[in-house]
Amino acid sequence: MRVLVRELGTYIDEKVMVKGWVHRIRELGGISFVLLRDRTGMVQLVYEGKVGFTQESVLSVEGKVRKNEKAPGGLEIHAEHTEVLAQAHADLPIPVNQEPEKLSLEALLDNRMISIRIPKIRSIFKVQSTILKGFAEYLRQQGFTEIKTSKLIGSGTEGGTGLFSVEYFDTRVYLAQSPQFYKQAMISSGLERVFEIGHAYRAEKHDTPRHLNEYVSLDVEMAFIETEHELMDLEQGILNHIFRLVKEENGEDLDVYKATVPTEEEVNRIPRVTYDEAKEIISREGGKKVFDINPEGERILCDWAVKEHGVDAAFVYAFPRKKRPFYAYPEGQKTRSFDLLFRGLEITTGGRRIHQYEMLLEALPKFGLTPEGLGGYVDIFKYGCPPHGGFAIGLERLTQKILGLANVKEASLFPRDRKRITP
Amino acid sequence: MRVLVRELGTYIDEKVMVKGWVHRIRELGGISFVLLRDRTGMVQLVYEGKVGFTQESVLSVEGKVRKNEKAPGGLEIHAEHTEVLAQAHADLPIPVNQEPEKLSLEALLDNRMISIRIPKIRSIFKVQSTILKGFAEYLRQQGFTEIKTSKLIGSGTEGGTGLFSVEYFDTRVYLAQSPQFYKQAMISSGLERVFEIGHAYRAEKHDTPRHLNEYVSLDVEMAFIETEHELMDLEQGILNHIFRLVKEENGEDLDVYKATVPTEEEVNRIPRVTYDEAKEIISREGGKKVFDINPEGERILCDWAVKEHGVDAAFVYAFPRKKRPFYAYPEGQKTRSFDLLFRGLEITTGGRRIHQYEMLLEALPKFGLTPEGLGGYVDIFKYGCPPHGGFAIGLERLTQKILGLANVKEASLFPRDRKRITP
Repeated sequence: MRVLVRELGTYIDEKVMVKGWVHRIRELGGISFVLLRDRTGMVQLVYEGKVGFTQESVLSVEGKVRKNEKAPGGLEIHAEHTEVLAQAHADLPIPVNQEPEKLSLEALLDNRMISIRIPKIRSIFKVQSTILKGFAEYLRQQGFTEIKTSKLIGSGTEGGTGLFSVEYFDTRVYLAQSPQFYKQAMISSGLERVFEIGHAYRAEKHDTPRHLNEYVSLDVEMAFIETEHELMDLEQGILNHIFRLVKEENGEDLDVYKATVPTEEEVNRIPRVTYDEAKEIISREGGKKVFDINPEGERILCDWAVKEHGVDAAFVYAFPRKKRPFYAYPEGQKTRSFDLLFRGLEITTGGRRIHQYEMLLEALPKFGLTPEGLGGYVDIFKYGCPPHGGFAIGLERLTQKILGLANVKEASLFPRDRKRITP
Repeated sequence: MRVLVRELGTYIDEKVMVKGWVHRIRELGGISFVLLRDRTGMVQLVYEGKVGFTQESVLSVEGKVRKNEKAPGGLEIHAEHTEVLAQAHADLPIPVNQEPEKLSLEALLDNRMISIRIPKIRSIFKVQSTILKGFAEYLRQQGFTEIKTSKLIGSGTEGGTGLFSVEYFDTRVYLAQSPQFYKQAMISSGLERVFEIGHAYRAEKHDTPRHLNEYVSLDVEMAFIETEHELMDLEQGILNHIFRLVKEENGEDLDVYKATVPTEEEVNRIPRVTYDEAKEIISREGGKKVFDINPEGERILCDWAVKEHGVDAAFVYAFPRKKRPFYAYPEGQKTRSFDLLFRGLEITTGGRRIHQYEMLLEALPKFGLTPEGLGGYVDIFKYGCPPHGGFAIGLERLTQKILGLANVKEASLFPRDRKRITP
């Protein structure tokens, strides 16, 4: 029976079998010290003489567990029988037992099949797995149903710009930018509360530390709300649940990034400022008048939130109508929509939507749209749709900000940008 | 405060507010009986005289809860104050308060934005939500990490047939048929045990009750296995967990389809027969010699499993090498791969994979492949990959078979087939 490295402490002076990768080989005075890595940690193996396997080879090793204060983790295994399950070639394209910071982002991504072996990089995706769990778990507790909707759409929605086109038998379809219409259809179906975890696509030529052309969207939609503040409440609940789980399950992963997650108390005091107030704050704090909230402004507003509210995040609501999609619920020249900025980056956009058929028909021409151009979308509202709203959290952006990564691409296993289509 | 229909029993003779859709309006002797539908059920509202709203309109209603044995569910609400949150137009394209069986599949799918309001259809997607939960929950308990990998791939894998192509800036990419290579990369990264829930695409011209061009794949990959039987054990564990949850959480949904899920005892006795044995059984039971296992054969084998083992499912393993992809682990002319048939349909394909670099290089030319044609795939194995294997469960097929649906398209919210690209 294989024993995991994490469990070795209960097998001192006993014989065990461990399996894993050769992280490092060091020869010293006729003894080889081999660091073996499995999914739970690393342990030192001790061999007499030289070893016949290379770094990154996969081993199955039997031997006795001994205490040794000098060994990493305080334990070592005196190897008695070793089976090489896979011998690795010696010409590793990048080192995997060094800090990833010593390599460029390009080198890490070009060699992604290998760079994901670096334990510090694997930590990113362990945290991401917990985010996925926390998001779904909290929403299920609140009576939400998980849905999966098509990523192939027949017509360009939301204006139709920035869509990738797909050859689909004898016709052409597009990759969905968001499940927006489908999640609205589902709340209107009577499910009332739905969420979806799915890929989303933006054919934008951006190449910035905050953009991906393919990302994972954590989408929520909820019926029978009155205002966007109920959505912000819900998002705070989700984030609290995610942060609690990350703290519980990813303590070591946070440590290697010297990262912490906000406490529940901090999340609960995230300030809510209107778009106009936000511009004023940014103008004042940044020392120059702004007419829009750009990435620099997002950082300034978060700095202000730290100073004034002790939390590195801020909700901005009451966005002007012309800055939001046609379906944003109007309130004069403003809308009932919001963003959440977290550690200087917008990680969420959402809001209440128009649910009345007549109001929607009236809004479309203002945005240069026709009911026909939107596929079956307007039918959702023709036949009775409750007041509702929702939002989406970018999975990679949330991961990035939790760990303090410089570039969102680091938080995508196999990122796609304008130039990068492999591996 | 809104009260959900399910909770009304605790409010007898009290005043409550309910919200939902008008499912049916019936006038009788100067009284209008309105059936109101919310996400938890239906309740009868009683109005004096005629009502001013149409079917499918969305209401917020205040009134007293009264016992009435003649009312559906034994309760009714005497409406005192009604707010019409959204008035529905009267020309519903399909009725939503009748059994869906009265409509054709085409009518249901053409009018999907409306047909999802039919409670019996919503049940399908409530069950599907539970399957998603059960799959992830069980695997996390077993130490698996959830991953999200790119659905845009730079080169055609597994031979390159049946791929949809995407215009990607100045080049061309493809929609992934499966996360196969990526999940193998991730187990080799040291995560060892990973799962992914994601969309998969097949550009096949099939239009059968068992095919979709876009579906959701429940993918698993696990390192340090010896044989495919460990994978079958794992799949039985997953299915037991899913079936238990579906029974607990979807009792009513199962009832409306007169469906049941297998017990743990039944799942645990699913027979495992080799491909050659399966052909013999099908030949004998079907009364004519077969040389392959086609859909008819899958049904015959499941019938045999019911008769001989008391369970409507069978694992088939030891598939011939030429019937499996190049990465299937060879065992002479056979492979360590398997299928799971459930209620007459293949819902899973999986197996142990080749993990040795040299063995892989030797296998490729037999399948007309080159290392270069596979992107960075072979690098996974060049640098030490443990013995491993995995499988994928088709979400829609599993949903279909749990509920006994005639066509897999019924188990997809917005199905895509050769002709259907909307809604």
